[in-house]
Amino acid sequence: MKETENYLFDFISRYMPLGEAEKIAIRESAVFRNYQKGELLLKQGQHSKDGYFVIKGCIRCYYVIEGEEKTTAFYTESETLSPLCSINQLPSEYYVSCVEDSLLLVSNPQMEKIMFEKFPRFESLCRILSEALLAKNQTSFANFKTSTPEQRYVNLLHTRPDLLQRVPQYQLASYLGITPESLSRMRTRLARRNK
Amino acid sequence: MKETENYLFDFISRYMPLGEAEKIAIRESAVFRNYQKGELLLKQGQHSKDGYFVIKGCIRCYYVIEGEEKTTAFYTESETLSPLCSINQLPSEYYVSCVEDSLLLVSNPQMEKIMFEKFPRFESLCRILSEALLAKNQTSFANFKTSTPEQRYVNLLHTRPDLLQRVPQYQLASYLGITPESLSRMRTRLARRNK
Repeated sequence: MKETENYLFDFISRYMPLGEAEKIAIRESAVFRNYQKGELLLKQGQHSKDGYFVIKGCIRCYYVIEGEEKTTAFYTESETLSPLCSINQLPSEYYVSCVEDSLLLVSNPQMEKIMFEKFPRFESLCRILSEALLAKNQTSFANFKTSTPEQRYVNLLHTRPDLLQRVPQYQLASYLGITPESLSRMRTRLARRNK
Repeated sequence: MKETENYLFDFISRYMPLGEAEKIAIRESAVFRNYQKGELLLKQGQHSKDGYFVIKGCIRCYYVIEGEEKTTAFYTESETLSPLCSINQLPSEYYVSCVEDSLLLVSNPQMEKIMFEKFPRFESLCRILSEALLAKNQTSFANFKTSTPEQRYVNLLHTRPDLLQRVPQYQLASYLGITPESLSRMRTRLARRNK
């Protein structure tokens, strides 16, 4: 437990130094939950107000379109997911599940409200983090639009090499916007070229 | 000027009611600027801390790749753009220019800091807006990944029909991830089908 808390404190400290009272408040109110590989955090059609911060593990978002899973995002250590349904209060359009056994910090607007009232600096932190995530997400989206599948794959090799080892190939393929067969051919081609 | 301020007040009021003191503070510190069609707000390689809220008009982000413009995003009335370079303090990877004559609210972190200190509620508002924009952006990205170019076009017809009239076809094509020729063929095909 101490290790988990320290992980969270270290993460927050990158953005703002934490006082003792703030650490105690986090310790008292933070909800950490363990999930097993394959476990569903959210289903299509479901309502939920929960957001997640990954302490350890990997979660993914996917749509089921004409019976087929389409993976759109992965979240690993120190990444945050606030599903759209937790914000617009409509039923979720997608699923969220665990690719690995995962340890997550779970929050909801009510818990946040209490924390922000006690410690307005936490709201500052959340604003700064959200703005940074938004700009990063817009850039990832732009990069996806302006690159070929092969460029996307090579980019992933450089920016998130761990992901290539951690997630099944069929999930990775739809994440890159291609079929598993295309991904397999691309890997063979790249391996040959790098010999 | 009064009309511009009222537009901004109306927008903010959707999220929180504004007090008189807050309105006065906004009036005194808000920087509204007019830009002409084609004017550049940001160049690739440039540093900038400015963020934009569109009161009137349309701005777009584009990359220049091998001499070719690749449009990745449009922002119209009531939409906000905080370019990545304003957050990570690295040179910009893309351009931002005006598709139409535009009236924008321009802000930077220093101006925001002063406002947040005087009116912490504004920081709340910015957090809420950023979180909502982030979730929306993640969903747009996911929709892009999981749909065909034709589905993306039809979706745009429903969600942002004005955009199709406001922006040149070649910009719209790369925004949809296709060539101008494909877009033209698609429009003809869809028009025939709907006859």
